[in-house]
Amino acid sequence: MLSAVKACAVSRPVLGAASRLAAKHRTFAAFGQLSRFYHKPARSSVFKKLEKDDVRHFEKILPAETILATPAVGGSADPIELEGFNADWLNKYRGNSQLILRPKTTKEVSEILKYCNDQGIAVVPQGGNTGLVGGSVPVHDEVVLSLRNMNKIRSYDELSGILVCDAGCVLEELGNYVGERDHIMPLDLGAKGSCHIGGNVATNAGGIRFLRYGTLHGSVLGLEVVLPDGTILDNMSTLRKDNTGYDLKQLFIGSEGSLGVITGVSIATPRKPSSVNVAVLGVPSYENVQQAFKLARRRCGEILSAYEFWDANCMGAVLKHQELKNPLSSDFPFYVLIETSGSNKDHDDEKMGALLEELMEQGIVEDGALAQDDSQISRMWAMREGIPESLGKTGPTYKYDVSIPIPVLYDIVGDIAGRLESAKLYSPGETGNPVRLVCGYGHIGDGNLHLNVVAEKFEDRVTNIFEPYVYEWVSSHRGSISAEHGVGLMKRDYLGYSKSPEMISYMKRIKDLFDPKGILNPYKVV
Amino acid sequence: MLSAVKACAVSRPVLGAASRLAAKHRTFAAFGQLSRFYHKPARSSVFKKLEKDDVRHFEKILPAETILATPAVGGSADPIELEGFNADWLNKYRGNSQLILRPKTTKEVSEILKYCNDQGIAVVPQGGNTGLVGGSVPVHDEVVLSLRNMNKIRSYDELSGILVCDAGCVLEELGNYVGERDHIMPLDLGAKGSCHIGGNVATNAGGIRFLRYGTLHGSVLGLEVVLPDGTILDNMSTLRKDNTGYDLKQLFIGSEGSLGVITGVSIATPRKPSSVNVAVLGVPSYENVQQAFKLARRRCGEILSAYEFWDANCMGAVLKHQELKNPLSSDFPFYVLIETSGSNKDHDDEKMGALLEELMEQGIVEDGALAQDDSQISRMWAMREGIPESLGKTGPTYKYDVSIPIPVLYDIVGDIAGRLESAKLYSPGETGNPVRLVCGYGHIGDGNLHLNVVAEKFEDRVTNIFEPYVYEWVSSHRGSISAEHGVGLMKRDYLGYSKSPEMISYMKRIKDLFDPKGILNPYKVV
Repeated sequence: MLSAVKACAVSRPVLGAASRLAAKHRTFAAFGQLSRFYHKPARSSVFKKLEKDDVRHFEKILPAETILATPAVGGSADPIELEGFNADWLNKYRGNSQLILRPKTTKEVSEILKYCNDQGIAVVPQGGNTGLVGGSVPVHDEVVLSLRNMNKIRSYDELSGILVCDAGCVLEELGNYVGERDHIMPLDLGAKGSCHIGGNVATNAGGIRFLRYGTLHGSVLGLEVVLPDGTILDNMSTLRKDNTGYDLKQLFIGSEGSLGVITGVSIATPRKPSSVNVAVLGVPSYENVQQAFKLARRRCGEILSAYEFWDANCMGAVLKHQELKNPLSSDFPFYVLIETSGSNKDHDDEKMGALLEELMEQGIVEDGALAQDDSQISRMWAMREGIPESLGKTGPTYKYDVSIPIPVLYDIVGDIAGRLESAKLYSPGETGNPVRLVCGYGHIGDGNLHLNVVAEKFEDRVTNIFEPYVYEWVSSHRGSISAEHGVGLMKRDYLGYSKSPEMISYMKRIKDLFDPKGILNPYKVV
Repeated sequence: MLSAVKACAVSRPVLGAASRLAAKHRTFAAFGQLSRFYHKPARSSVFKKLEKDDVRHFEKILPAETILATPAVGGSADPIELEGFNADWLNKYRGNSQLILRPKTTKEVSEILKYCNDQGIAVVPQGGNTGLVGGSVPVHDEVVLSLRNMNKIRSYDELSGILVCDAGCVLEELGNYVGERDHIMPLDLGAKGSCHIGGNVATNAGGIRFLRYGTLHGSVLGLEVVLPDGTILDNMSTLRKDNTGYDLKQLFIGSEGSLGVITGVSIATPRKPSSVNVAVLGVPSYENVQQAFKLARRRCGEILSAYEFWDANCMGAVLKHQELKNPLSSDFPFYVLIETSGSNKDHDDEKMGALLEELMEQGIVEDGALAQDDSQISRMWAMREGIPESLGKTGPTYKYDVSIPIPVLYDIVGDIAGRLESAKLYSPGETGNPVRLVCGYGHIGDGNLHLNVVAEKFEDRVTNIFEPYVYEWVSSHRGSISAEHGVGLMKRDYLGYSKSPEMISYMKRIKDLFDPKGILNPYKVV
């Protein structure tokens, strides 16, 4: 699903409101009952309805060009101008905010929040608005607090690789900046051309460098956060080690803008690898996918930077819908993409070569292709990244982004397929059934599976087979119902499948502690 | 200072109470006014004094052999048996607990805490008791809750390298266990023979693998924590990715047992490197120490696993007090130890060789020695690790464990030396002054400096030169007054030098949220 972001977000055009609405219409026409998955809670009467006097107040404390208010609240902006802030980029979630504020400084953010908190006005913090769970758009009439005008690099230390910047910096631009200084950002994801580093941190984004560089809980060294009451929590450390009291910044990483607004980020950037190798392998079983992963970790060790897999059904869809050829000699039940990144090309070539040889000799993989140049590397990645789009072209797709312990990771795919077959809804290889395809792909190294069910249309008799069954299955294996996308509006009601009542109770207490009036990103997360 | 733990803890004998007391006496005799640094707060009247009925209660819920109670509270244990729980291993901090509980199960921990919380009895959680800031021993008569009987490995997945175990497992034993399965623990420190993984997590231990494998905030995947009211917070995930709500476990990492008692840990273990290289370099300036670090990161990239430095004064003390020879041809202002760990010996040798050649050619380093076998590797590490002990043999030592941005990391050493010289208390190279040596060493890669001042004795005219000056200096550079040792009792009053009033205020609110009666590890952290 992450790759969906990558494949789509990078190339997505900036739609005008009209075409966005049209797109929305098409989506719903094609996808039928999609809305059943996104229960929209009623507006809470606790929150004040925005008045013209409120906008007058913001006009006093903010530069005019940073305010976008509709005539309904005394402004002069065409409501169409607010469309891009009110809806997410997939047009799944849609709010009705009449006021967009785009402050330029932390102090302005603080003044905005203080006023909203005093007045009981609900607020949605918004970064690049590339999320997939409805976390960054208003549900009703919340004020949108966009961080896009806070986009300065504050400092960069080339020796330590520590970057300090505003939360509104676009990930790709940061990547370019540190790239010119021989470093890379510790995370990379498809939405990098639009997403903000503040949003990445707020959602604890995963992405394709996770296997190598790990979680943002490790890479983020400091945060500047404005709390709902306007308090500026300055925890902008540039230190790798700091054991002075509770590590409060960790709470904001992955809190999806519901505890405070991240305005500044300090983050450690790794050195840029000088050599990259990519291979695609044909594998006879999921058991062998695991064996190959084990051997890859042993032989490539420190240079292994990605280990992705997908099944034959995914491959079939990709080869049908993308301008790509199978680099292997025949078809296989499973495919693996291995990437290495290192500091010495000769060494990396040798390690990768030895690994591939051993995998073939031991019969763990049956065929393999090693990219010979950057263009082949791109095509191999395009194969993996083309899966979500190709499935989308096959039909309306139910998507689950889950973490499951690796040994049983793929079991759920066969399990769901079996249930659908028993119910006479699916027959592998045959057409004309309510379900066209059940397939799985993902990041083996991270234990992150994307389970997809492609149907003729969304309908209850299909949905009922695997919902809530999938959540129960994941829960019974102590998995996570959201590996990397977060909770947002979409999964708030399902949190109990991954977290105990005690955990959720303490999450709510934490929310109350930082946001006692609940004005920040209401209706979401907990 | 960490290395002090390493050097001393591994070889420390298990002292009987008498010799421990004798050792304490000697320590205080030698160190004079050391006690001034460790202000002991008055006992809080909020806490109930332990009564015989309380012990009767514990006898009902715990096996007899897990209780150690003195006659003062109705037990039969010789108070000498409690010595090892009442004092830290350096005999700096000393409490007066009359009751030690060593539960075997999480449920027992829960029942103990629930009772103590209901009754208002203060509790100190204790792991291996190897801390350096007085965090793991009672200040007054708190009940000691030792985790040493909870020492089972719960599961290990060799494919993913994810270990799940009780909090009381000894780090070294875990290292041996995963070592036999071709992995290593993501942290290593001198106290590994005694310290518990639960204590490591509770104190967010750093150690010598930090540069390569990063912080425990990244490696720890799940925790089982018992809250003061007995609630068991089960967050024992074995997933690398899990974005379902606030990441509460992060709060307990580094909370020093003041928010909850960690009873179980899930942690990711890296693959064991098959090749290790170590070199010691002679460097003409701190500027060059930084340049060499930059080049080491570039040339060795993914295999760089340690980059340690020390100055000439440290080296002088080591060569005087240890059975070690300078592996270099002459003396230098600075020394650097570089370690690489990788999966291919030929490749690693080539990378390290090329780095050393380039460092010499460019004149960044003036001499270097590359270890030819394991014994030479050990001796080189012994040189670095022998520093604290050697300084201790030189005289009573003021020690500061601080994080400072790397470019100015060493400035503080010269600054302090200059202030002492101006005050006529120190003259480099001369004897007979109140201060014998000012020196610095540490983990450059982590920005972690150990500033040491060796004196004739502890006395105010010396102390006043750098206290609170060191804290102010660190604070003015946005550094941390505790890089890796934590706060405990020792630095609680100095937290404000590294954290803002707002941050400290929210830390206190977090403490109140999880421990409203304040029974857990009182007088410490915040």
